[in-house]
Amino acid sequence: MTTRPSSPDPLHVIRDVVGTRQRFLLTSHARPDGDAIGSQLALAFALRALGKHVRIVNKDAPPPYLWEFPGVPDIEVASSVDDDFDALFVLECSSLERTGLTGLERYFVINIDHHVGNGAYGAINWFDETASACGELVADLIDALGVTWTREVATHLYIAILTDTGGFRHSHITERTFEYCRRATAVGLDAAQIARTVYDSNSVGRLKLLGALLNQMELVADNRVAVLILDSTLLNVTGSSSHDTEGLINVPLSAKDVQVVALLRTDDAEGTRVSLRSKYDADVQVVARQFGGGGHPNAAGFTVREPIDVVRARLRPLLVELVRSSEGAPKGAPYKELE
Amino acid sequence: MTTRPSSPDPLHVIRDVVGTRQRFLLTSHARPDGDAIGSQLALAFALRALGKHVRIVNKDAPPPYLWEFPGVPDIEVASSVDDDFDALFVLECSSLERTGLTGLERYFVINIDHHVGNGAYGAINWFDETASACGELVADLIDALGVTWTREVATHLYIAILTDTGGFRHSHITERTFEYCRRATAVGLDAAQIARTVYDSNSVGRLKLLGALLNQMELVADNRVAVLILDSTLLNVTGSSSHDTEGLINVPLSAKDVQVVALLRTDDAEGTRVSLRSKYDADVQVVARQFGGGGHPNAAGFTVREPIDVVRARLRPLLVELVRSSEGAPKGAPYKELE
Repeated sequence: MTTRPSSPDPLHVIRDVVGTRQRFLLTSHARPDGDAIGSQLALAFALRALGKHVRIVNKDAPPPYLWEFPGVPDIEVASSVDDDFDALFVLECSSLERTGLTGLERYFVINIDHHVGNGAYGAINWFDETASACGELVADLIDALGVTWTREVATHLYIAILTDTGGFRHSHITERTFEYCRRATAVGLDAAQIARTVYDSNSVGRLKLLGALLNQMELVADNRVAVLILDSTLLNVTGSSSHDTEGLINVPLSAKDVQVVALLRTDDAEGTRVSLRSKYDADVQVVARQFGGGGHPNAAGFTVREPIDVVRARLRPLLVELVRSSEGAPKGAPYKELE
Repeated sequence: MTTRPSSPDPLHVIRDVVGTRQRFLLTSHARPDGDAIGSQLALAFALRALGKHVRIVNKDAPPPYLWEFPGVPDIEVASSVDDDFDALFVLECSSLERTGLTGLERYFVINIDHHVGNGAYGAINWFDETASACGELVADLIDALGVTWTREVATHLYIAILTDTGGFRHSHITERTFEYCRRATAVGLDAAQIARTVYDSNSVGRLKLLGALLNQMELVADNRVAVLILDSTLLNVTGSSSHDTEGLINVPLSAKDVQVVALLRTDDAEGTRVSLRSKYDADVQVVARQFGGGGHPNAAGFTVREPIDVVRARLRPLLVELVRSSEGAPKGAPYKELE
């Protein structure tokens, strides 16, 4: 069944399914993030508290900053599944393809997600785009199942919310979000310790890479456009790996002036890979499309078979034009927006 | 009166004082931070809702990342006060001297703080070191005064908590902390927007300075000690100001391996100024004392009349010895600590 967001129906349908079935497979999207892992493990601990059989199988390993948390080492990594299960939970995943796993079509699929554009590919589909994290929906499900939050459950719900809100900096943070955080701390977890484990787990190579990228950053259009170049030697020079590059593109956006960031990197197979990020109303997807790419208004990308310098020269004037035609920062102070 | 932390008495005494008096002066420590400004403005909006006359006077201007928030432009900056007031609230300040203002001794002082080591210098002293921010105590006071949280009040209480917990990463985050956050969002503020205003207000110069510092970072003792050099030319080269240096010393600590950071900077008048930071049990205060400085176990510093290279050469082996003799990261995973 497909239902509207916020409808209570799918939650109760899922509760009833759990009541009558015993063996559950849980998965999420490939390259799972904190919300994917946190949602899976919170639900797994809750289902096991009900005596259910649970396995978690993902296409890729959990990110290293989560390895110390309970249950994470038990997550299986595989590219297909063909064992018997009574139902499959797919959490925080817009399509079955995005799991990266083959063989999932045979199962009774329960699809729980908070992303706009979810494909409603399940036998049961529950999505609520007003949730800050899929973890919020899992919290509701655990409550509906009547399972008391343990420290393990609370830890993973908190990880889901903490990471998917970018440390409480992204949208959809509501009264409900903080109510779950309150309940998580009430169970006794140390929220600060979790945040430090998640966020203070940089590698030294990543620090050096950040330094090298910022040190060579090109700024144009009155500092509104930043261009970062990650050539093939930089990972070696800084002793970092491609894993260390994640999220670095967002750092220049922490400057008030910077509205668009482009990160160009050498891709031996394909030429040049370009990631674009923006804030406010600069729609980088429009630029990505001109190079055959795509994405979202504030996060897009493309790959072209041209050397990095050629791409940079073609891209720069398009980004300058983009910020010149966009509004820039929202008018007025934040509290005025609240009036 | 001086009371024990958590005693309800001072809160009710303060409530009664507010009920019988009309003209209030509010101040906080010099170089006020988000908790100082947020606590002051939340209380000021609440007192004004009761028809009270309120002025806020600080020794220094609010930090730029707060300038857009309501009431901030009305804060007065001065070095002394001699007008008539019925009472003075000193918020988030361990001693009258730390306000940097002269002339405060004449007033009826209400001292509200959450710092260990508060001097109990007021006619009424209310401190609670279990609070994540002074803003938590102000929230309790506003409730005791019977003032409904407006968006302005909620915004400043949230700013106090957000900034003093370092974006929910420091200690003393409890169920109470998130309950205040929940209530703040219930009043309608946009928590994500506030966080972005506070944290995404870097200058471009600061980004470049960060890049230059990390690019030249020296790592010793198996990456457990990082040494940063801020020579006199670097601010000019990167187009940054001394204001932009704040907090940069903490960035290397976000690497899992790094346990101690030293930032050495040229000080024309005095020679070399050194700031030391650490995590876990490496006590940098011990090292600072050997150079005539001081501070806390995880944050200390000193100034010596020697060139930067000489200081670096003397300091390096002491820091290497320090991390070799300390324990490093706490044993066990975070969730195991929760057991």
